[in-house]
Parts: sequence; structure tokens; C-alpha cells
Amino acid sequence: MAVATNRQILLVEKPKDKLASTHFRLVESNIPEPKDGEVLLRVRYISLDAANRAWMHGATYRSAVEANTVMAGGAIAEVVSSKAEGFAPGDIVFGDTGWQDFAAVPAKHLTKMPRIEPLTHLLSVYGIAGLTAYFGLLNVGKPKAGETVVVSAAAGSVGSIVGQIAKIKGCHVIGIAGGAEKCHWLTSTLGFDAAVDYKDGAVYKALKAAAPKGIDVYFDNVGGDILEACISQMNLHGRIACCGAISQYDGVPSATGPRGVPGLIVVKRLTMQGFIVMDYMDQRDQALSDLQSWVVAGKLKVQEDVIAGIENTPQALIGLLAGENRGKRMVKV
Amino acid sequence: MAVATNRQILLVEKPKDKLASTHFRLVESNIPEPKDGEVLLRVRYISLDAANRAWMHGATYRSAVEANTVMAGGAIAEVVSSKAEGFAPGDIVFGDTGWQDFAAVPAKHLTKMPRIEPLTHLLSVYGIAGLTAYFGLLNVGKPKAGETVVVSAAAGSVGSIVGQIAKIKGCHVIGIAGGAEKCHWLTSTLGFDAAVDYKDGAVYKALKAAAPKGIDVYFDNVGGDILEACISQMNLHGRIACCGAISQYDGVPSATGPRGVPGLIVVKRLTMQGFIVMDYMDQRDQALSDLQSWVVAGKLKVQEDVIAGIENTPQALIGLLAGENRGKRMVKV
Repeated sequence: MAVATNRQILLVEKPKDKLASTHFRLVESNIPEPKDGEVLLRVRYISLDAANRAWMHGATYRSAVEANTVMAGGAIAEVVSSKAEGFAPGDIVFGDTGWQDFAAVPAKHLTKMPRIEPLTHLLSVYGIAGLTAYFGLLNVGKPKAGETVVVSAAAGSVGSIVGQIAKIKGCHVIGIAGGAEKCHWLTSTLGFDAAVDYKDGAVYKALKAAAPKGIDVYFDNVGGDILEACISQMNLHGRIACCGAISQYDGVPSATGPRGVPGLIVVKRLTMQGFIVMDYMDQRDQALSDLQSWVVAGKLKVQEDVIAGIENTPQALIGLLAGENRGKRMVKV
Repeated sequence: MAVATNRQILLVEKPKDKLASTHFRLVESNIPEPKDGEVLLRVRYISLDAANRAWMHGATYRSAVEANTVMAGGAIAEVVSSKAEGFAPGDIVFGDTGWQDFAAVPAKHLTKMPRIEPLTHLLSVYGIAGLTAYFGLLNVGKPKAGETVVVSAAAGSVGSIVGQIAKIKGCHVIGIAGGAEKCHWLTSTLGFDAAVDYKDGAVYKALKAAAPKGIDVYFDNVGGDILEACISQMNLHGRIACCGAISQYDGVPSATGPRGVPGLIVVKRLTMQGFIVMDYMDQRDQALSDLQSWVVAGKLKVQEDVIAGIENTPQALIGLLAGENRGKRMVKV
């Protein structure tokens, strides 16, 4: 902690097309003073998520990020000093600190976390990623043993956990990911039954070969063409859990949605349900207890992708949007 | 019953674009002989539905209709003679008789109906239309008192019942229909709170004015642009019941789905669920008892649109696809 000043990464301009490092600038400022009700945090790990890019389009489930402010982002941080009841130096918290070394944040916006090792697990398997996978698959997708589950962005932080939980539940699991290497990792290391490389083209055909009995649950992280290919192969009463739409975030959003909506939704009695993990927080303890038991038993492998240095945060997000990460990407500050 | 021969309407060619009367031909043939297990039916009322046109595109929840066969279609019919147990002359049934005076149909494909007056109610409020409205709204849309419910094709057979049931359940109800006359009928006769004329353009704006608190339940009969306008005005945790997509049936289906799928589905945690009334038939008795009590109490108005003469069936379907009917359209044979 030999940091004298607070390094901050500003979003200096909102991208009109693809995100580039020129949209960000590293500046140095003073370490902030916490006000009453706030705590001063030392940021340890910044979470990188496709949603970071979606926030630049406008208000979603949170307000839009604005130009010439510190880029917003969740992080695991340690309390340095506290002017809020219930928080003491050394506490570990999760909150939206933004991309910086230090942040003064109202205590009511922070979630206290256990001090576990490795700390990174609080952003991956026991963080938003793991809980999103858990609730999205189990509460929205409702897979039954023997059913076919397809997940896109399958080598990503959420997708890699979705597929493994589906295997734990006895499903036939197919991951869609970019590149032969990721696909090989899904089947050989994570135990997926099959993987489809969307960069290889012909997703519809490859999916048809991998899921000859059709798809019962599709966990959608990407939207666009891949959603379209999946919708048309869904079985009667199939469930589509809409988690995100990475394919639509970086660049001008596509003018149109996938074909087959709502025609195939009707004919196949599909359920399409959007969800945000925050809606399920009353069931968090049960989820974490399940996740932990699966990790301990070796049934759930934790894949993390840790980039060192706050100065590399923009490039780390840009790379994530291009699909270069495997598992949960974060920046060690 | 001074009919000596069996008048039949054949689909002689599947339409490539809009349906026209040239796709049909009236022929005369002999009255068929029922085989073992079949009954001979005298068709009384042929049901006309937008789905008739969808069947021409290919297999849906039933096999596609084929060229140079009697056009498929549901009807209320009377048993003339029976070679099947449990069916006797004079019984009233519902089944897919096709567009003809007489049909020999396997008894296992028929549903016995009560002989009520008017018989037409067995195709409208107590038929597929009424049950579709009932289950789609209550089991899929799940409206709560005080919520805003929007229904498209609101002057049609299903939509006109959906809106009235939503009013019975204490909702604020907005119908979308084509033309000032239909819209006036929705508000003045059926008790809808507001109506939006989609032929007047600016559906998004008109809807925004009619539903200032946003939409909680959208019962979608039409798909396309109107679905798109509704999706973007849905409230958090809103429900979209996908019943059909009339806008996509007559002509070349649109190459694309509505914008906002799945982006807005996620952000607003929407549920989009396709349904077919047949899935709810185990709850049919309860539904019919509710519908009947509402009709008797004058809370639910039955609107029927009866066209006379089997020879007018093609034009009656073509007109229905153009939106010229109000309430349940059928042909009196």
C-alpha cells in the first residue's frame, strides 16, 4: 500500500461505436475524506463485466454512467477508516467503488463480505457471477435431470458456472463459446457434454448436432443471432433465461430482435424471462451454502482471470467485450 | 337440410403473399360414409381464426394444411349418424370438420358440447376464444387489481373477452384496435378505460398517453411493431402473454423480431410466455363456470360476427386477416 495518491480512471467520452482505450484517462487525485455515514475504502479487486459497457448506453437497472467521471464498477475493497456504524478498519466489503485506488462510499451502499481466501472468489463463484448463474439457472431455467441445457458465453464468468451447475443437476450440457481452445476447455476441464464454437460459423447446425433432442433450457448471455439459433431449436415448454445481451452492447445496438419472436414463443409455449440477481437476494444464504459445498466437493471449478494493475482496467474491459477472458475477469489494484 | 350433396371448399394453392379468394375453390362431392369409430357430422358453424392462415405456413401446434384438400377448420356440428360408441344422432360436437357441409370424423377427435342457445356461444365465449382469453390472461398474464392491462386485436374474438375479464378483475384496461369505430365500441360498450387506434399511427405515443403508469400485463395477439411499442413501456416484472402474431401471418413473415428483445426483457425482468389454450383443458370446467356467471351477470358481453353461407367462408377469413371483424367471426353453414 505504497500509494500516496488516488489513481482514478475516468470515462472521458461515451463511445458511439466500439469501446477503445481512448475513451478513458488515468488521473491522480487526493485520497478522499469520508463524510458522516461513509467509509473510506482501499480497492482490492475491480470486477469487470459486460454490463459495464451496457451502462454507457443509458439507464438500465442502474443510472447511466456519465462522461468525465470516475468509471463505475463493482469491487472488493477493504475498509481503511469508517464514519459509519458497523464498519471497522480491516472489514472486507463489496460495493460500487468505481475504478480507483480509494473511494469514500456511503455505508448503506456496501455489502459486508467474509474475509475468505482467495479473496477473488468473492467476485467469482461467491459473487454476483456465481449467484447470477445459480438463480438464473435454477429459479428461471428450472432444469430437470436429463434435460438439455445450452448456455452462451459459456467460458465467461457466469456461463462457466451455469454449465457446471447444470451438470451437477444431471443435465446434458452444451456450451457456446468463441474459439477452439475455450471449447476444448469446456468439455475437457469443466465436464460440459459438448461445446459449439460460434467463431466457426454455422452455429445452428453445430447446435443441432450437439443437441439432437432439442433444447429444454437456454441460458442467454448474448442475445442476437445466437438467441435466434437457440429459439428455433427449443423444445415445447422450454425455458429461456435472459441474463444479458453481450452481442448488443459494444457498438450501435442492432435495430432488430431475433426472428421467431413471438411466433415460436407461442407455438412452443416458451417462457422468456428476464432476471437480475438482486431480485433473489433473500435466498442468498442458501445459494452460497450450495455453491460452497460444490466447490469443496470438487464438483464446481472456479475459473478466474485476474489482470494486475489499475492502469490496465480499460484494456481489460475492452478485451472482455471481445471475448478474450475465460471465467471471471477482475483487476487486482 | 335440403342439401343433397356435400359442398366443400378446397385450398387449391398455398398463398405466397396475401391470402385471396383465388386460393380456394368450391366443389361438390358425395356425403361421406362414416367408418367404424367415426361419426357423420352436419356442420353448423365454422370458426374463423387468424390461426387458419398461420397453418398455411407449415407445422405449428398442428400439421400444416396442404393444397388440394378441404380447408381445415374447427366447427360446431351435429351428429347425423354414428359408428362410434357414446355419440348419437342429434349430439352437438366441436371438432376439425374442415370447410364443408358434412364430414366423417373419428370420434376421438371430437369434443361433445352442451346444446345451448345460441349455439354460436360454443365458438365464442364458451369456445376456444373465451377459454384462450381466460387462461391467457389469468394464468399467464396474472393481472392484479389496479394494474394496467393492454390487449391488442382488442375488438377481436379473444381480445374483446380479455379486456372485459381484466375489467372484472379490477384492472385499468387499454385496447389496441384498428379504426375509430372499433375503438369507440371498446370504451363505450365493453367498458375499456381507453382504446388506441393503430391505424391512426403513433401507437407508441397514444399508448403512453393511455397508460401513463406503464404496462403491467400485455396480452399480445399481433406481434411485430405493436409488440415492440408495448415492450418498451412495460413496467418492472411485467408479464407479456404471447397468444399469437396476426401481423406476421398474412404475407411473407417479417425477417426480424421486435427491437428490445432480449435487452428490455432483462432490464425490466419481463416474462414472455407462449401459450396454447389446449394446455389448460384440465381447468376447463372452472373456466366455463366463471365465464357463464359473468355473462349471466351482464359483466361480460358476447360479441359475435356470423357470416351466412359456406360459399362465403374464404372471403370471411380474408376479411378477418384484414381486421374487418368485431368479436368472434364464424360462418353459418
